[in-house]
Amino acid sequence: MSFARFDRYVDRQARAFTERLQAMCRMPSVAARGTGMRAMAEAVEQLMQRTGLGTRSFKIGSGYPILFGEAGAGPRCFVVYGHYDVQPLGQLTSWSFGPFSATIEDGKLYARGASNSKGDLVARLAAVEAYQKSFGKLPVCLRFIVEGEDGLGSPSLYRFTKENAELLKADGCIWDEGYKDTKERFVVSLGFKGITFIELRVHGARSDLHSKWGTIVPNPAWRLVQALSTITSPKGVITIDGFSSYIAPITPEDVEALKTVEIDETGLKREFRIAGWVRQMKGSTLVKEHIFGATCTICGIQTGHTEAGAKTVLPSAAMARLDFRLVPDLTPEIVVSLLREHLDVRGFKDIEIIELGSAPLAKSSAQSSVARAAIESAEEVYGAQPVIFPLDPSSGPVGAVCGVQSPPTPVVSFGISYAGSNPHAPDENIRVDDFLQNIKYFGRIIHRLGHEAKESKIRQK
Amino acid sequence: MSFARFDRYVDRQARAFTERLQAMCRMPSVAARGTGMRAMAEAVEQLMQRTGLGTRSFKIGSGYPILFGEAGAGPRCFVVYGHYDVQPLGQLTSWSFGPFSATIEDGKLYARGASNSKGDLVARLAAVEAYQKSFGKLPVCLRFIVEGEDGLGSPSLYRFTKENAELLKADGCIWDEGYKDTKERFVVSLGFKGITFIELRVHGARSDLHSKWGTIVPNPAWRLVQALSTITSPKGVITIDGFSSYIAPITPEDVEALKTVEIDETGLKREFRIAGWVRQMKGSTLVKEHIFGATCTICGIQTGHTEAGAKTVLPSAAMARLDFRLVPDLTPEIVVSLLREHLDVRGFKDIEIIELGSAPLAKSSAQSSVARAAIESAEEVYGAQPVIFPLDPSSGPVGAVCGVQSPPTPVVSFGISYAGSNPHAPDENIRVDDFLQNIKYFGRIIHRLGHEAKESKIRQK
Repeated sequence: MSFARFDRYVDRQARAFTERLQAMCRMPSVAARGTGMRAMAEAVEQLMQRTGLGTRSFKIGSGYPILFGEAGAGPRCFVVYGHYDVQPLGQLTSWSFGPFSATIEDGKLYARGASNSKGDLVARLAAVEAYQKSFGKLPVCLRFIVEGEDGLGSPSLYRFTKENAELLKADGCIWDEGYKDTKERFVVSLGFKGITFIELRVHGARSDLHSKWGTIVPNPAWRLVQALSTITSPKGVITIDGFSSYIAPITPEDVEALKTVEIDETGLKREFRIAGWVRQMKGSTLVKEHIFGATCTICGIQTGHTEAGAKTVLPSAAMARLDFRLVPDLTPEIVVSLLREHLDVRGFKDIEIIELGSAPLAKSSAQSSVARAAIESAEEVYGAQPVIFPLDPSSGPVGAVCGVQSPPTPVVSFGISYAGSNPHAPDENIRVDDFLQNIKYFGRIIHRLGHEAKESKIRQK
Repeated sequence: MSFARFDRYVDRQARAFTERLQAMCRMPSVAARGTGMRAMAEAVEQLMQRTGLGTRSFKIGSGYPILFGEAGAGPRCFVVYGHYDVQPLGQLTSWSFGPFSATIEDGKLYARGASNSKGDLVARLAAVEAYQKSFGKLPVCLRFIVEGEDGLGSPSLYRFTKENAELLKADGCIWDEGYKDTKERFVVSLGFKGITFIELRVHGARSDLHSKWGTIVPNPAWRLVQALSTITSPKGVITIDGFSSYIAPITPEDVEALKTVEIDETGLKREFRIAGWVRQMKGSTLVKEHIFGATCTICGIQTGHTEAGAKTVLPSAAMARLDFRLVPDLTPEIVVSLLREHLDVRGFKDIEIIELGSAPLAKSSAQSSVARAAIESAEEVYGAQPVIFPLDPSSGPVGAVCGVQSPPTPVVSFGISYAGSNPHAPDENIRVDDFLQNIKYFGRIIHRLGHEAKESKIRQK
């Protein structure tokens, strides 16, 4: 089928779609701060309705609403995941533009949430609109599930998946993380690492003391440092007792898949402004570590006085936040339990572990219908075979959404971002052309999912 | 000589003196923030002038003025040190009252700076006033040196001591740090530890990254933790190469002096709300460690995201602030040089050491005239022999002030505070009765210094 009519519609509406995205990005929906969340949810539901989706809003406890919207009909059904909340802003002074100004400069739209992931949501709904205007009703049923707690570890979504499993039974699932790499190659992922996000807390005296007491009063900051230093080696290898024994060998199929992946070392080093990689890795070793390496990252440490001014105190408390990214067969439960025991046997029983959030991993096959639609459409729209990650190094509540049926629903993920999008950092941005191109891409995916469904039925006969 | 008249004057003026202190405490003079410093310096100079002191204001470069005020005349001369700046506020929410409200509740005056050390300055000037009103001219020359950069490491004072050494040539020096301990025993110190305050900095990627990059991008937070963990042992012993070889044995005289010191372990543990001391020390071992132990205290660490919200980032930078308290014969230069070499040989050449401030140690004899005046006056006013610290565990620019002549000017230190004063923490406070009692105490010291001077002259004849 020719997509000329579809593409013309997207081209004609390019400005309107972009302004639609800007309007969304101007709404400050930082879930961690609780600001602007109600208005954002309403705006998203209205956009779904204007696009012709039948919507329902699910309110789980005191959480932010989960918006469910169904478009099209067909023998097969696919879940499309999105979220309308955005990450906290970090250092405001590090932003070149107001994080909610949605300023476009040099073809880039700067806003917290532009990349992660209002741009994806608006692009996908725009593709549904363009498809309907060009070809009529969708040939497939798409179920949009849009949550508002991505930045909080998705507590409502986890409850939603348990209480509404029937809505999630589908032939595949499309996630919203993805980008073009530094060599402009479109990336498709076939799964996500799991994650465990924890906080370690150590307590000392009732309040910060004059540091002269460093002679005899226990310092929780030193205790935290000594405990942390047992968790990884100076070379960055995780040294928690028993941890490595849970890491499954990479399958022959995945070893093959890894060969198609390449890390643009020079480009990324320039982008990140770093001299080299951990343990001086390079080439296929680097790729393997990035895709199949488990991580333990210090995401933050805070103790004592760290503002301007020479304030010498003995801190009353110290805390560190760590996230672990999990590969087969690590689970959040295993990691927390191993860490607890590791600290206990070293005499660090007083160090509290607080679990802030977690998600199991999700991994599917390149032969699934969603994967094939994503890969074939990428060849058509982006003009080359996409990079295929057997496992995306990032994480999300994918495992919960895809795990409601057995075997798990196949998942594929891609997005509108590029290597310089800074999705968790200041100056988050997307390129407007990527956004518009991705609308065209998603149109093809809709078509292939419907078309393949028919083929599949024919094959079944 | 009877001090009845002097004491009556202090009692009659008790309310006025207290209100004078409250007015000073309501002026927010946080040197680290640069707020209210000019107004504070003017108010202090006016108070000195109203008390009859001839004043001069020294401006060193762009620093806050050093106020010099001379009272009385006599064969001997003593330097009285003070400072008009206060520590940063820390967590505002941890304060029971506004830090500059100077609220009095249950006999305690709460304010940032009340203990450290506007209370001392106001008390000493009040004693000069009371002495003049009761007995006429002072029998001794007191030179008040009041700086505004205690919280900044006293950079102007260091330059001042070099450029105005003749003003600091004196028979003794009286510092402004001291308190009643948890058993209400008045503490007199005969010196101060040295200090080196440094910042360690590690740099990673150009900005915080999504923590999925923890697989292959170096994490400066881990690097800082690994470097720090080599600086002390898990038991809290400093393990910098060569450090312990610079620590002089405690002299037999100091071993004797230490026997007079006692730490109220139960009271302090309750005050600090801690279960025990470092390395489970107690008794004379604990006292010896507190007085003659060198320290390396983590005063603060900051890296990554530590605010509310589950933000999983790979930090772009990490920093720790450390202060070392120095005992004989450690110097700031030795410590920085040893630490640099210690880090270098362990492969941490990339970790920057930034020197934020330092001061040499100062230590004098219990037989000096200032020490004898302080000890004898304490017996008279506080009704018991004071606790005598051969070395105060805290630090200041004492070594620079007392080091302008050779041998160094003897120094003694005491103050108006008590064990619960929180001088570097929220809810800094003093007891109003301690403040008034200390005015009477300082009156006796003025008298003894003048009187002893005469005795000394008689002895010389």
